[in-house]
Amino acid sequence: MKNIYAIGVGLIGGSLCLDIKKNNPEAVIHGVSRKDATLNKALELNIIDKKATLDDLGNADLVIISIPVDATVTLLPTVLDKISDTGLVVDAGSTKVDICKAVENHPKRRNFLAMHPIAGTEHSGPTAALEGLFVGKTNIVCEVEKTTFKLQEKALKLFSDIGMRMRYMNPEAHDKHIAYVSHLSHISSFMLGKTVIEKEKNERDIFDMAGSGFASTVRLAKSSPEMWTPIFKQNKTNVIETLEEYINNLTHFKQLMEANDFDAINSEMENTNHIKDILKGIS
Amino acid sequence: MKNIYAIGVGLIGGSLCLDIKKNNPEAVIHGVSRKDATLNKALELNIIDKKATLDDLGNADLVIISIPVDATVTLLPTVLDKISDTGLVVDAGSTKVDICKAVENHPKRRNFLAMHPIAGTEHSGPTAALEGLFVGKTNIVCEVEKTTFKLQEKALKLFSDIGMRMRYMNPEAHDKHIAYVSHLSHISSFMLGKTVIEKEKNERDIFDMAGSGFASTVRLAKSSPEMWTPIFKQNKTNVIETLEEYINNLTHFKQLMEANDFDAINSEMENTNHIKDILKGIS
Repeated sequence: MKNIYAIGVGLIGGSLCLDIKKNNPEAVIHGVSRKDATLNKALELNIIDKKATLDDLGNADLVIISIPVDATVTLLPTVLDKISDTGLVVDAGSTKVDICKAVENHPKRRNFLAMHPIAGTEHSGPTAALEGLFVGKTNIVCEVEKTTFKLQEKALKLFSDIGMRMRYMNPEAHDKHIAYVSHLSHISSFMLGKTVIEKEKNERDIFDMAGSGFASTVRLAKSSPEMWTPIFKQNKTNVIETLEEYINNLTHFKQLMEANDFDAINSEMENTNHIKDILKGIS
Repeated sequence: MKNIYAIGVGLIGGSLCLDIKKNNPEAVIHGVSRKDATLNKALELNIIDKKATLDDLGNADLVIISIPVDATVTLLPTVLDKISDTGLVVDAGSTKVDICKAVENHPKRRNFLAMHPIAGTEHSGPTAALEGLFVGKTNIVCEVEKTTFKLQEKALKLFSDIGMRMRYMNPEAHDKHIAYVSHLSHISSFMLGKTVIEKEKNERDIFDMAGSGFASTVRLAKSSPEMWTPIFKQNKTNVIETLEEYINNLTHFKQLMEANDFDAINSEMENTNHIKDILKGIS
């Protein structure tokens, strides 16, 4: 793995570069981005060693695509067109069905490994890149059987070395489950932020009363719309299903309050309290 | 402030004891609780110096009540009955209207200061008590004018010394605003946890895919139902109003998705993104 190309050098792409570089000092990290300012920032932060373009990919041992998922769907076939027979392409997108479908019949399909490293923060861009972001985190790998065995092996070693544990899943199961544990959380957080901001317009100083609990619950509302709009678009059916269930649960809670059934309100909370145990180990 | 009585020695009461003791080494902290095991734990953790009962309160320079808000409403008049003319009683409840109303005509009303220190974690009980929990946090003080000037002054010094900044508000405004920035966050978190747990019953291993974003959004679902049920009961009207607005915003988001209006979805998120700036300073 000498020549590594990172298409997208933000939070996820940039963090992957930092850890891979650390484990593989001989590697040369080439950055590719639509925006030159982003590449300059990534150079300045030592996330990448060189700037590059898509035309250089014939030279790549590994290409890591970490850009919005709509751009991945468009760009991935072109990247595979350009890759050599021994080159590996991976993506880090939060959806997997559309991305896998975009290359299902591509002659170089076996040079591609579909992944979703489940790690991140609410920040974005090269300045958000962090060393060690992936330690102890899960990397969901989809359709592993469609990738050349040798390239599978290379990728799994690379991502194990930066601390990730692999989980194998088909793209449909990935998109269905991740809607619950990630996509829904983002919407609940954005809409909580919206509800409170709308109130603030009329009632001053409300945020002066906000504590760490509010900050935690609304943290994901700082996330990048550019990343998240295409995720919701690609995973529309699953996300709408989770939203329906969430809205039903909230409406039921409201109805219990309206009916003064506070024993039932108490049970609702007690039954959810064991999320303590479930969350152990997720930091 | 020699003899301090803490009624309730959990997360909030216990943390207040730790910081007050640190600033006032001469103080003797007496703990009062329904449960002897809780007092023993508080003694063991050096949160309190002695166990006590309600019958000892005549001796108190300061009484801090940090128990569920329904118990506060019931107990507060009795505590005021027992306090000396120079004794001060404060409470730390998350609702203020019912608590202030419970003693509005009490002959010792001027010995009481209604407060809400906005600090905490999702944990509870004496083992959850933390030194320095209140540094930089807001203490909402209600109806300050109804408290004897000398006792106001004492209380404000005590709570400034542990790092809090005071904000003055009437109980109605407190309960209305706190419903948005605290009570609603708890419900959104509990119901998010419920939605995902219900899914997990049918689909195994879903939590294996949960990352730090989910953990943050669902953190408050670990909170104590014993504390929160009476808060929702006392602040029912305001909480229902916030829930309605939240459900409307979520429903609108779902409708935009159903209509494939992803430009509007993007705007929804962009408009909420500036919560970044709003949250600066809240940790």
